[in-house]
Amino acid sequence: MTRPTDARAGRRHELLKALSELRCDAALVAHLPNVRYLTGFTGSNGILFLSPGSAILFTDPRYDLQAHEECDCRVRIVRGSTWEGVWKHVAGRCRRLAMEADRVSHEVWQETARRLGRKAKLAASRGLVEKLRRVKSTEEADAIRASARLCAEAFLETARQLRPEMSERDAAAELDYRMRRLGAEGPAFETIVAAGARAALPHARPGDAKLGRGPVLIDMGANVSGWMSDMTRMVHLGPPSRGFLRLFRAVRRAQEAALAEVRAGVPARKVDAAARRVLKAEGLAGYFTHSTGHGVGLEIHEAPRLGAKSDDVLEAGMVVTVEPGVYLAGTAGVRIEDTVLVTESGAEILTPVGKDLLVLPS
Amino acid sequence: MTRPTDARAGRRHELLKALSELRCDAALVAHLPNVRYLTGFTGSNGILFLSPGSAILFTDPRYDLQAHEECDCRVRIVRGSTWEGVWKHVAGRCRRLAMEADRVSHEVWQETARRLGRKAKLAASRGLVEKLRRVKSTEEADAIRASARLCAEAFLETARQLRPEMSERDAAAELDYRMRRLGAEGPAFETIVAAGARAALPHARPGDAKLGRGPVLIDMGANVSGWMSDMTRMVHLGPPSRGFLRLFRAVRRAQEAALAEVRAGVPARKVDAAARRVLKAEGLAGYFTHSTGHGVGLEIHEAPRLGAKSDDVLEAGMVVTVEPGVYLAGTAGVRIEDTVLVTESGAEILTPVGKDLLVLPS
Repeated sequence: MTRPTDARAGRRHELLKALSELRCDAALVAHLPNVRYLTGFTGSNGILFLSPGSAILFTDPRYDLQAHEECDCRVRIVRGSTWEGVWKHVAGRCRRLAMEADRVSHEVWQETARRLGRKAKLAASRGLVEKLRRVKSTEEADAIRASARLCAEAFLETARQLRPEMSERDAAAELDYRMRRLGAEGPAFETIVAAGARAALPHARPGDAKLGRGPVLIDMGANVSGWMSDMTRMVHLGPPSRGFLRLFRAVRRAQEAALAEVRAGVPARKVDAAARRVLKAEGLAGYFTHSTGHGVGLEIHEAPRLGAKSDDVLEAGMVVTVEPGVYLAGTAGVRIEDTVLVTESGAEILTPVGKDLLVLPS
Repeated sequence: MTRPTDARAGRRHELLKALSELRCDAALVAHLPNVRYLTGFTGSNGILFLSPGSAILFTDPRYDLQAHEECDCRVRIVRGSTWEGVWKHVAGRCRRLAMEADRVSHEVWQETARRLGRKAKLAASRGLVEKLRRVKSTEEADAIRASARLCAEAFLETARQLRPEMSERDAAAELDYRMRRLGAEGPAFETIVAAGARAALPHARPGDAKLGRGPVLIDMGANVSGWMSDMTRMVHLGPPSRGFLRLFRAVRRAQEAALAEVRAGVPARKVDAAARRVLKAEGLAGYFTHSTGHGVGLEIHEAPRLGAKSDDVLEAGMVVTVEPGVYLAGTAGVRIEDTVLVTESGAEILTPVGKDLLVLPS
């Protein structure tokens, strides 16, 4: 069995343990964030074969130098179809091969089963690597902390420059540009800048509409060396109305209530329930149309889930978002979101930006 | 059967024809670019159910307003798992349901088959929508032309400002920022800025390395309203060496030779062969490690493929890249790439930027 010599080898070692519990003697990992986690490879095409005796990354000639530079395992460059190279390798080499049934296409699954031959079995695995990824090591939490700090810095440098005549699109471009200049690979997801009634679209794409006077919802995150962060803040151009302030304060209280629940050992749904309880008291529960949060790491959405039906239990080292929101169609939307690290005693907020409504001149 | 009232309805009509040829009475489409093509929906979670009698987009509450705004078909908002809503809908409703075997996970496939029940059959379809997408309508070609023009404009505005002390990362950030400010949703893919020997990594990720003196490879594309473009140009900071110029001229001649082959009716592999022939004569064939091009549209890589083993035949209305390159590990890399529209008589170059080596002061 490979000796864990560094973080990635240690992760592969953990995966091999999980595989032996499933009585599998090898695994194929094709979901790219999982491949990156286990090998360091950052390219857009890579499949990892892992067995107690070997770890081989299969990729194509475009990534020849890069894969050798990035990976701490063997690299096999395949001309033509990468899967073809993988199939040739696994045929006759394993008896029970685990594959990510939720990540690999039905077509690839069928062909892998065929090429394995009758003597070998393909076993549907799900979430094995994702489960390892849920709890972050100190180094991983540091990487996300750096990502969140960069996101916060870009927000603070940019938000005060927002003006009513600026379009949502241009504001988003400025935020992304700041993140890049501060050292991010890019945004963690398509940055949301939604002004006025458009903030009632929880995943609005920035458009040509001017920000105008009124509220602006900014939901942004950074991708720093593959590690994501996620934060939402509300800005207001010109003085806010009483109605808006009522909405804002309700969401803010809901977010604080949810944050107060976060701690190792707490069922994730209790965090969701805390936010919902505050909004219900304000008659706003029906306008909170998504769950309270999600895990963040090498992907912007990963385990655990912080929703009403979640069975997840928070553990120290998990990194999650806490992001209640209310959306009044045609009128306004408010969301406030932090990325936080779950600790034994509570939540460390990784997105260090004040949550008072930022009111700017209009 | 739905009457084609506009482009999207017309596309769904074409898909229904293809389905009836497969003796299917309905289809589920889950690959997001296909969903966007058929409905207009731009969100990150949407599944289309299509039958002669109905077209329904399933999505989650986050996209309630947006989906109704964007789609010309029925919209069904599902709380909880979107697939759960789809499964409830299809159960008992179809006899032979087509699903994208190459796009849908094995897990979803298995569960869909189970929920359909014994009386109904799930049929593996592959590339039905992608096939429709290969040949672009006049409007679609116009959309890609606009995307390519914006990409070219951003390149021209930015390239002359490159300086040796700038990092690859910052140069990429400038290019992306220009594209955004000119109206792009974002880059079509992670912009490549690779200086010196790093240009020998065909898919180099921009790093902290300074550009320094020497060649810089810039591979960039825009995403304008979902339509992609793709272009590679070489810039040189300071006077180029003879060795580099020889390499550059060889690739340029290879690209021109490949472009000269592009025309409706020509097998795609002939375009690839033309580029390879030129490089072979220069003793560089072994350093051209990828295929000559690929289709471009709602995805940056789509059908057809322009490689040595491709069975595709070019048709008028296809939009493809022509991008030979040579990569000398540890030394240098050169690639030149245009996005072109295939016509009856040749290739219309959509990326209107001169291909002379752009030499800048160092």
